[in-house]
Amino acid sequence: MKRTAFFISDGTGITAEALGQSLLAQFENIRFDKLTRPYIDTTEKAHAIVAQINRAAEQDGCRPIIFDTVVNKEIRQVITESNGYMVDIFATFLSPLEAELGADSSYSVGKSHSIDNNQGYKERIDAVHFAMDNDDGARTHFYNKADLILVGVSRCGKTPTCLYMALQYGIRAANYPLTEEDMERLQLPTSLKPHKHKLFGLTIDPDRLSAIRNERKPNSRYASFDQCDFEVREVEAMFRREGIPFINSTHFSVEEIAAKILVEMGIERRLK
Amino acid sequence: MKRTAFFISDGTGITAEALGQSLLAQFENIRFDKLTRPYIDTTEKAHAIVAQINRAAEQDGCRPIIFDTVVNKEIRQVITESNGYMVDIFATFLSPLEAELGADSSYSVGKSHSIDNNQGYKERIDAVHFAMDNDDGARTHFYNKADLILVGVSRCGKTPTCLYMALQYGIRAANYPLTEEDMERLQLPTSLKPHKHKLFGLTIDPDRLSAIRNERKPNSRYASFDQCDFEVREVEAMFRREGIPFINSTHFSVEEIAAKILVEMGIERRLK
Repeated sequence: MKRTAFFISDGTGITAEALGQSLLAQFENIRFDKLTRPYIDTTEKAHAIVAQINRAAEQDGCRPIIFDTVVNKEIRQVITESNGYMVDIFATFLSPLEAELGADSSYSVGKSHSIDNNQGYKERIDAVHFAMDNDDGARTHFYNKADLILVGVSRCGKTPTCLYMALQYGIRAANYPLTEEDMERLQLPTSLKPHKHKLFGLTIDPDRLSAIRNERKPNSRYASFDQCDFEVREVEAMFRREGIPFINSTHFSVEEIAAKILVEMGIERRLK
Repeated sequence: MKRTAFFISDGTGITAEALGQSLLAQFENIRFDKLTRPYIDTTEKAHAIVAQINRAAEQDGCRPIIFDTVVNKEIRQVITESNGYMVDIFATFLSPLEAELGADSSYSVGKSHSIDNNQGYKERIDAVHFAMDNDDGARTHFYNKADLILVGVSRCGKTPTCLYMALQYGIRAANYPLTEEDMERLQLPTSLKPHKHKLFGLTIDPDRLSAIRNERKPNSRYASFDQCDFEVREVEAMFRREGIPFINSTHFSVEEIAAKILVEMGIERRLK
């Protein structure tokens, strides 16, 4: 069975998407066609969306599910007239929150993902540039400014994790690839030693690592299972010897890895 | 007035955070202390959180606001016993959705941000590496694989926007810096010409650009207002001459810029 889901907003659509995705993921046996429709900020655009919703209803033979965070009541009114099932996020929670907080909601659009509401915005962009400049051990003399330094073998997932933590939470994360040479010397690279308390290790199953490396350099020694198996074993031994906390990234997404690292390191997310 | 807000989850906490942030942003006159507590997946951890909530309640002199997406009922039960005001996201929406979909929810934890539920996960990680490898005009011979190519003057926000679109939506975005030379030649760089339909322009107010460049290279010609003003004027003229759609990034976050670009280019977000 297929159903269409719409994430509709007069802002970026990010909140409607996040909540809608989480709720729909609880229904594993239904296939959803998911469409995000941001910036629905006029009644004309709302009417166009209603036409799309009604077309989907006809094609699917059942009502599309609509997650909306439209703040403007007039626009929301237009959408309620569609042939969809509406999960009305703001309407559901704002009135009770107004009562609890003893304050009126401003009913203003797109607040949470704008620059205005976002003291941490500059911090996040600076963190992205920090992650780029300090990716893959490219620079090591700014580690005093890092919140954390991810270490692990080549292609175990360090770069996307650092970028995610920077973009999402404004965390300055550098990363440093541990090489065969480092392992053979049986000690941490000199540039990492003074920052040991900032280190966090990533590891990965050798067969998964071999598959990833084979995409980059097919049939190389670098990508061979034996080489991957050796590096992973050595790097995990080093993490244990040096008392560096680490997790295995094989079965986790960057979102999960980032959340776990922050919990373990006791770093508070920098929210807007 | 200060109030504490907790975003509590037995998964990553991302959904609780997104919804909580959006709702709280509607109350502009209240200062919220926001704390995310992911992976609250045992009743022991829940009891520890309850202690934190109750401490905050005492310090603030009023109830903390709790946004929770805890799926496990036993754990959620513990949290309801805290001295907080609970916005119970899943409980509110899941039962009505079950009725509408004619299916039981699986009540399983952390579905939406895991790899399992995420056919697009590999695509997202590949897109991040694509954005890194094709950042700042570093490579131009893979533009046939790009979904879009951001163009604009140096430091107008191209890199964070590309990384955001890659990480969040699995979109392969390259970026190419337009230089004084390109502007003087009065035509698009040769490497961009065959991909004109993929180009999207970013521009920025000259005084903002000058401030950003001054952080990187203080008191340089590159960072001077006159130079920034000249480049921005020329690049906007080029966008108009070549019919390249563009937006001014000065007052928008990467989330907003990304959402606007996808709408204008007609690119559907690749959701999980």
